[in-house]
Amino acid sequence: MSDDQLVIAGREFGSRLIMGTGGASSLSVLERALVASGTELTTVAMRRMDAEGGTGVLELLRRLAIQPLPNTAGCRSAAEAVLTARLAREALGTDWVKLEVVADEDTLLPDPHELLDAAETLVADGFLVLPYSNDDPVLASKLQDVGCVAVMPLGSPIGTGLGIRNPHNIELIVSRATVPVVLDAGIGTASDAALAMELGCDAVLLATAVTRAQHPELMAAAMRAAVEAGRLARRAGRIPQRFWAHASSPARES
Amino acid sequence: MSDDQLVIAGREFGSRLIMGTGGASSLSVLERALVASGTELTTVAMRRMDAEGGTGVLELLRRLAIQPLPNTAGCRSAAEAVLTARLAREALGTDWVKLEVVADEDTLLPDPHELLDAAETLVADGFLVLPYSNDDPVLASKLQDVGCVAVMPLGSPIGTGLGIRNPHNIELIVSRATVPVVLDAGIGTASDAALAMELGCDAVLLATAVTRAQHPELMAAAMRAAVEAGRLARRAGRIPQRFWAHASSPARES
Amino acid sequence: MSDDQLVIAGREFGSRLIMGTGGASSLSVLERALVASGTELTTVAMRRMDAEGGTGVLELLRRLAIQPLPNTAGCRSAAEAVLTARLAREALGTDWVKLEVVADEDTLLPDPHELLDAAETLVADGFLVLPYSNDDPVLASKLQDVGCVAVMPLGSPIGTGLGIRNPHNIELIVSRATVPVVLDAGIGTASDAALAMELGCDAVLLATAVTRAQHPELMAAAMRAAVEAGRLARRAGRIPQRFWAHASSPARES
Amino acid sequence: MSDDQLVIAGREFGSRLIMGTGGASSLSVLERALVASGTELTTVAMRRMDAEGGTGVLELLRRLAIQPLPNTAGCRSAAEAVLTARLAREALGTDWVKLEVVADEDTLLPDPHELLDAAETLVADGFLVLPYSNDDPVLASKLQDVGCVAVMPLGSPIGTGLGIRNPHNIELIVSRATVPVVLDAGIGTASDAALAMELGCDAVLLATAVTRAQHPELMAAAMRAAVEAGRLARRAGRIPQRFWAHASSPARES
Repeated sequence: MSDDQLVIAGREFGSRLIMGTGGASSLSVLERALVASGTELTTVAMRRMDAEGGTGVLELLRRLAIQPLPNTAGCRSAAEAVLTARLAREALGTDWVKLEVVADEDTLLPDPHELLDAAETLVADGFLVLPYSNDDPVLASKLQDVGCVAVMPLGSPIGTGLGIRNPHNIELIVSRATVPVVLDAGIGTASDAALAMELGCDAVLLATAVTRAQHPELMAAAMRAAVEAGRLARRAGRIPQRFWAHASSPARES
Repeated sequence: MSDDQLVIAGREFGSRLIMGTGGASSLSVLERALVASGTELTTVAMRRMDAEGGTGVLELLRRLAIQPLPNTAGCRSAAEAVLTARLAREALGTDWVKLEVVADEDTLLPDPHELLDAAETLVADGFLVLPYSNDDPVLASKLQDVGCVAVMPLGSPIGTGLGIRNPHNIELIVSRATVPVVLDAGIGTASDAALAMELGCDAVLLATAVTRAQHPELMAAAMRAAVEAGRLARRAGRIPQRFWAHASSPARES
Repeated sequence: MSDDQLVIAGREFGSRLIMGTGGASSLSVLERALVASGTELTTVAMRRMDAEGGTGVLELLRRLAIQPLPNTAGCRSAAEAVLTARLAREALGTDWVKLEVVADEDTLLPDPHELLDAAETLVADGFLVLPYSNDDPVLASKLQDVGCVAVMPLGSPIGTGLGIRNPHNIELIVSRATVPVVLDAGIGTASDAALAMELGCDAVLLATAVTRAQHPELMAAAMRAAVEAGRLARRAGRIPQRFWAHASSPARES
Repeated sequence: MSDDQLVIAGREFGSRLIMGTGGASSLSVLERALVASGTELTTVAMRRMDAEGGTGVLELLRRLAIQPLPNTAGCRSAAEAVLTARLAREALGTDWVKLEVVADEDTLLPDPHELLDAAETLVADGFLVLPYSNDDPVLASKLQDVGCVAVMPLGSPIGTGLGIRNPHNIELIVSRATVPVVLDAGIGTASDAALAMELGCDAVLLATAVTRAQHPELMAAAMRAAVEAGRLARRAGRIPQRFWAHASSPARES
């Protein structure tokens, strides 16, 4: 399917599965999961790197030839997120940033006001901004209007594994998107990822669904296949849902 | 994943996707879909063969080295289904039969009484019986108790594309199954197939979701990937669902 | 709404909520719940009466002028259920019977074969049979065809509180019903009961949702209101669901 | 249930159903619906009043002794909404206002930024502000933090009848609310309203579900009963959901 690349900010990706690195029990577990996932773009938490005082994840990504996507996880204000993004640019030499500004620790939900402020500032500063947002179609429109290169609505809060709580909102976002839509957060299992793609998302971003699964490598392979399945199904044009049964004539076959 | 074969009646299958042949617009469309699906077992309606006076589908399956699974689609009574199964055995030289006995044309739902009667008769007659049933856990238990080599509960009525209407029943069936469970009927798109496998089904059987999709070959590839994804996810052990968010410490990453 | 009576077997009921008596912590709790529910028809387990050696529940119903509906709870075969029904007729002097024949203790799901056998026998014996069944539209059709005066599909297994797992099946049953449809088993809370009525059921039967609630009397009042709400909504003709918003012109109001 | 009043901004209401007036085919239809609903608080669109050049709705509410709640429906910016609210205060002599600031006509979804701005301005200006918002728990927290007297998250977009698309978000909002939570928009039928109350909302606001139903008066009565049912069920403490069946011993009863 080489004719079906994901393109973000002019860059092509062969995989529509974006991985996160949080939650893995060790670097070797993470490595096997990343390889099994087939990902070509993976987030790295700048603040965690400080905390851990290590750069093992970055070295791993370099070795695997996976593009690192620094994120601003843990930031609670626009100012903090902007600062973190700038430090990341210095440290990693990339203009790409996954922008996270969360409102509180219990829900880890994005703060829509701080998020939009930070996005505007970073776009003006030359960043390629991929904002993690709630599933509000209005906020998604605003984020793309200020120049974000993708919109990344959640399916449900981070780490909950609740899947896509509101497919209607995701469909509304997709129907008006002018940039790629990446389903970010809430994915719990393979069918959630497939559904995201069937709803019209361009990619899926997930971490804990893989890293905290009982067998991360198997789940990474599952997610890889699920994203492909959902994308193919979207392109294939599914049969409509109907109330009554529908047999093939003269005798039906299933 | 060569260590994860589907085994029905002692026979191993590398693919967990069982295809039907009804609804395809032409033999060449069907051929491309079957190849893309990776299936190794495919149903053929004996009564339709009579009606069409042709054996094109059988020749196609022979050429593709896919095991044909004759079915009794269109039968409305145990007697009719038993007769059809016997004719199929004569014609195709196989003891395998997908047993269908439907109650009416509007719902194409199985008749639980005629179905169980026919199953008992055919098992006694040496058939390897794969019965298409509703999603009643009690009926599934009875079918395996009389010697069926698999149970095949529906997700929703044939051709509706409504997916799995009652995951709870499928889980109940899986939890007490002593033979493989094949989700049969109702699949509309890839995430439905993935969900079936995540619920613990051993395989998925579908036809119109592929043959009547706008692009059957693409949807066949989607279903193949979805079944693999769902199976892998089941084996991988998904994260639990939780009400509150869950960050990686010290700063969360997704 | 005196023009909207429930009629079963020619008898009119002002309430569409049928209660069960199992699970109550005491007779006085049960009494307050029954009064709050407004029920005019309430099931009594014949086998439990034997076990408890008491007739307190029957005396209570007599005092409250509620029609007792003996049931065959706990029976596992047609023969056992038929015997129990006959004993009930002797003891209570009523031809009405709620017919239950369950397949096992883990799911308490009806055995479709034993159930249909028992129904035929009891109808031939002059009983007015209200059979507790699964949600299979085919079985519901058979039960009404053999002369049952109502069909009583489950929403989900007894005592689970899982609500209506498969609204599609309930709609199918309603669409072909020639006798009243009573949603029996699985109701957990008020919205479940309202939904049952909106789907077109004629009445709702429940017990543990009330008797095991933290405050049985309040929940009984809730269920009474919910059944009325759902019935009124069904009759009122709801607005269709639509993908896009719909404002009142010139400026919308909500 | 006189001990269970709804209290907003210190004022008590015997009914937890807040009505809107849009969509009614005539004033007499509206009157019958309002009476049947039992509502004590009803929204009036200020901009529509201008457009219609009439005050029939206000006179009707006065006659029925229902408190009018002016709203800013149709406003697209904070400035416009603030101006409309001030005109309403002049015209109606009330500090109460339902604040609506929508982002576009296709979704009628609230603009979170303009909404919060307008709320802050109006609170500072002495208004009692009831803001119509999306279901984002973060926005709900901000609205109550700036002094709104209630929060009014949507179930789904206005007029869609899609019910409560994301119960999880509503539960999150309720769990952190310091002011009454009113479910506003998206209600299609009675069970939706009951569910809103079961999730912990303090009231429900709806218009088109009643005014555009085939029989508005019946649906108003349905909604009245549904809100009562849901409230009672919340207070009653429902049984937990469980996977396996649960019989009453020694023989179960339902």
